[in-house]
Amino acid sequence: MRQTIITGKSRQENSAEHSWHTALMTIILLEYAENPQIDVLRVVKMLLIHDLVEIDAGDTFCYDEHAREDQHEREFQAAIRIFNLLPKDQAKQLQSLWEEFEKRQTLNARFANAIDRLQPLINNYYTHGKAWQKHKVKKHQVVTRNCLIEDGAPKLWRYASKLIEDAVMQGILPE
Amino acid sequence: MRQTIITGKSRQENSAEHSWHTALMTIILLEYAENPQIDVLRVVKMLLIHDLVEIDAGDTFCYDEHAREDQHEREFQAAIRIFNLLPKDQAKQLQSLWEEFEKRQTLNARFANAIDRLQPLINNYYTHGKAWQKHKVKKHQVVTRNCLIEDGAPKLWRYASKLIEDAVMQGILPE
Repeated sequence: MRQTIITGKSRQENSAEHSWHTALMTIILLEYAENPQIDVLRVVKMLLIHDLVEIDAGDTFCYDEHAREDQHEREFQAAIRIFNLLPKDQAKQLQSLWEEFEKRQTLNARFANAIDRLQPLINNYYTHGKAWQKHKVKKHQVVTRNCLIEDGAPKLWRYASKLIEDAVMQGILPE
Repeated sequence: MRQTIITGKSRQENSAEHSWHTALMTIILLEYAENPQIDVLRVVKMLLIHDLVEIDAGDTFCYDEHAREDQHEREFQAAIRIFNLLPKDQAKQLQSLWEEFEKRQTLNARFANAIDRLQPLINNYYTHGKAWQKHKVKKHQVVTRNCLIEDGAPKLWRYASKLIEDAVMQGILPE
């Protein structure tokens, strides 16, 4: 289970739902990629697998600085175990996709990460910021975490910024 | 919510989870496609969107013959409404993907449908056939429904057949 609330507001979202949602958003929002020459299948693959490591490592709330300290090591160990349940060639392929996503350097990884950040931001906005309030998250933390949307999709960052400003105006995200 | 039980056995699966699972299976099981020259991205897209119509039309349990009578019309109307929330070019693209999936004629659609059938079969098998028993489903119904896996992925049908035989042997699926 993730910290994000589903837009129906009844419960927290799980990683399968989040992964499906981001893969679908990739297909629909493709035209907003910084460079539309991205490899869509590669981006979709990254998003379908990017949270599999949480089977072992658990979900780390993105604004929990303490838990984030050893997150990388926990997730790296998880990736090795989980991907290596598959035959070697496939394990290698998925490990490489996951590392590309995590490093956020290639065009593909930057768009995948932009979508991965935008999806919970939209959910938080449309659930009146419940997850933000529960964890006492402030505007500057939301901006710091999400401004990398700009790296992969500058137009989507402009949209996300408007949601953040509006959330502050509405009083659902403290300044 | 679908009739299938998640492998953790605690509850029914939902359509987002099912769609994510089938998209991921497509990537992993690609080598078993009848023709490996399929367009993987197109198959993944089909599976990501194939159940969106259930937002309006609801889930029809695959062995419920009564509910299946008007299923096509309900789903067709749902597809028109839901896809047309998008700009026209995208609505047209998704409608065409969904129709291709439903018609099961192209290589891509046949593999997508094979995966869409295999996933709940695996879940039913690994949850001791609870959904089968709840709905009094018998072996011949499972075979009739799932034998089209052979159309898209003959080797996966051989695997599925073994699961069905084993389910009967174990007494979790009545002959």
